[in-house]
Amino acid sequence: MAEKAFQEYYPDVLAHCYGCGRLNEHGHQIKSYWAGEESVCRFTPAPHHIAVPGYVYGGMLASLIDCHGTGTAAAAAYRAEGRDMASQPPLRFLTASLRVEYVKPTPLGVTLEIRGKVKEAKGRKVVIEEWIVANGVVTVRGEVVAVQVPEQMLDDLVT
Amino acid sequence: MAEKAFQEYYPDVLAHCYGCGRLNEHGHQIKSYWAGEESVCRFTPAPHHIAVPGYVYGGMLASLIDCHGTGTAAAAAYRAEGRDMASQPPLRFLTASLRVEYVKPTPLGVTLEIRGKVKEAKGRKVVIEEWIVANGVVTVRGEVVAVQVPEQMLDDLVT
Repeated sequence: MAEKAFQEYYPDVLAHCYGCGRLNEHGHQIKSYWAGEESVCRFTPAPHHIAVPGYVYGGMLASLIDCHGTGTAAAAAYRAEGRDMASQPPLRFLTASLRVEYVKPTPLGVTLEIRGKVKEAKGRKVVIEEWIVANGVVTVRGEVVAVQVPEQMLDDLVT
Repeated sequence: MAEKAFQEYYPDVLAHCYGCGRLNEHGHQIKSYWAGEESVCRFTPAPHHIAVPGYVYGGMLASLIDCHGTGTAAAAAYRAEGRDMASQPPLRFLTASLRVEYVKPTPLGVTLEIRGKVKEAKGRKVVIEEWIVANGVVTVRGEVVAVQVPEQMLDDLVT
């Protein structure tokens, strides 16, 4: 796919996150894209990301909701300003709170589709509604309240 | 410590969880204990469990809340029945929902203390209130709604 993922635009100093940092060799390195008004990330958990035999570990699913949520919040902030994600200064979001509802057990061994959309955007706060689909069935619903990283914190990290 | 952790009583078939399974060599293998009416788990995230430089990845913190919560729910269920955790049949809980509030950034490089207590117990549902302490400061607050694994599901897994 020629299109770059949201996470590929993160500045290097912010690209170490275990969930979504492209520079974290031990991490999940998730990749999120727009699909119309929704965002989508495809991820296949490893066999050791198990809960009980046959099913995905809930903490992994929470992690996917978390990082796909902050990624979608950032991408939505650029969109709202009519800016390309490569433009400066970078807009990055941290998770203020996370809610995950395990609707059904999520089967291990299949590619999951994590989908998100902006539920609310107000000032520096963006609320992302998300759901995870396995084999065409929604198994998880979640919500991330993401807050834009203050410029001062970004400056402190970058310099 | 001579005392066994909650997770050391899980039957083998249920001891593969990435967060708390003692048999998952790739996982976190967290260990939870009673401390009076509260439960406690100590865990030191690895350097690669990073969010932004200096701070712990939110998905890891959600994972700790998740597994310490289901462990505490199980231990509380045995306590409520006046049973030893080694007694049969095993009582195990799965997460129905998870809520995590990131109150402050959680510093990387220190041992975290995850604490929990039963907020509500009603039939097969147990609600665990939790908080994470780093350097004496509460950085995360969370809640897990845990539901007892149905006997039939346990039987299917065990046999």
